[in-house]
Amino acid sequence: MRKIPDSTVRRLAVYLQFLEEFEAAGTPTVSSHALAERGGTTAAQVRKDLSFFGSFGKRGLGYAVPELGRRLRAILGLDRRYRVAVVGAGRVGSALAQYAGFAARGFDIVAVFDSDPAKIGRRLDTREVRDARTIEPVVAAEGIEIGIVVTPAAAAQEVADGLVAGGVRAILNFAPAQLVVPPDVELRNVNLALELETLSYALAHR
Amino acid sequence: MRKIPDSTVRRLAVYLQFLEEFEAAGTPTVSSHALAERGGTTAAQVRKDLSFFGSFGKRGLGYAVPELGRRLRAILGLDRRYRVAVVGAGRVGSALAQYAGFAARGFDIVAVFDSDPAKIGRRLDTREVRDARTIEPVVAAEGIEIGIVVTPAAAAQEVADGLVAGGVRAILNFAPAQLVVPPDVELRNVNLALELETLSYALAHR
Repeated sequence: MRKIPDSTVRRLAVYLQFLEEFEAAGTPTVSSHALAERGGTTAAQVRKDLSFFGSFGKRGLGYAVPELGRRLRAILGLDRRYRVAVVGAGRVGSALAQYAGFAARGFDIVAVFDSDPAKIGRRLDTREVRDARTIEPVVAAEGIEIGIVVTPAAAAQEVADGLVAGGVRAILNFAPAQLVVPPDVELRNVNLALELETLSYALAHR
Repeated sequence: MRKIPDSTVRRLAVYLQFLEEFEAAGTPTVSSHALAERGGTTAAQVRKDLSFFGSFGKRGLGYAVPELGRRLRAILGLDRRYRVAVVGAGRVGSALAQYAGFAARGFDIVAVFDSDPAKIGRRLDTREVRDARTIEPVVAAEGIEIGIVVTPAAAAQEVADGLVAGGVRAILNFAPAQLVVPPDVELRNVNLALELETLSYALAHR
């Protein structure tokens, strides 16, 4: 398969969000124009994004909502559930561990870790915060595939190493650190302050 | 000024993060190669990103760390502080309201709002959660420029309208809703589940 631009993958996830709203409302078909309008892009971009994955819809008839939804879920790997660990039970980590939006999309947070003795053993919803020294065996035993790192920068690499040793295949990193992972592990960095910085850029350049 | 790609602005913020580490370590100069390596990009891309904003560095000598840091802060609008409101004091909103990483980058959370009587009046660090019905007058009186929306989807547009009426110039939206704002208000959407979905895409396409 061709390398698909990251921006296309992100838009597909956005289109899917709208399709599921149309699905819930019982709308049978949707045009590329309608998807484009909701996603803040153009109809041509919608058609181009979808064309990476084959042929969708009929000219003049638009896309069948349930079918396109099903195919997008399959493309995005969302036709199954994922077992996820959160490392770091501070404020942001705890909020993420309890974020209902993850389970709604198929991502089940099955373990939470921290290295702080005051946090280990504390309950977050139904889960108990576990000792970060047990990351590797717990990840392996629980079949965890995705790790979310929400630790201080100084701890992040060691945590990532433990997750990788335990067998995760993907890491979502909120720590302000450049992690090094093997090439077969997917790494994505999220920087919450950076989102505000792109806004301050826009404010400064009015 | 030419329209600068969003991806360039994001990379500039990442370069700045590294420059500040070099600054803290007392490193006098840095090459485009070193910046590229830390940022997971190429030296040519670093030079191209910087070239949008004029001439930086000397061929063969690299960039002077403090000067490039100062110029990037000015470009990103980070040479001043911003007053920010968070609307929605649920788990994610409360974590964001207390997130130290924002103040460290110049974004001061000066007000937190919620519509839930059980949350109004509760303290988050030094701030008291205020009644969401007061968004417009508080934003105006406090000179708040940026709003962070962390409400359920159904409430998000009304909240955004209040923020805009009060005078914010930019909104960072975590709610799973497409907000409509006037063209002179910057809007950026963050979808935490979407970050996991781009990882599941990668896992599905191995």
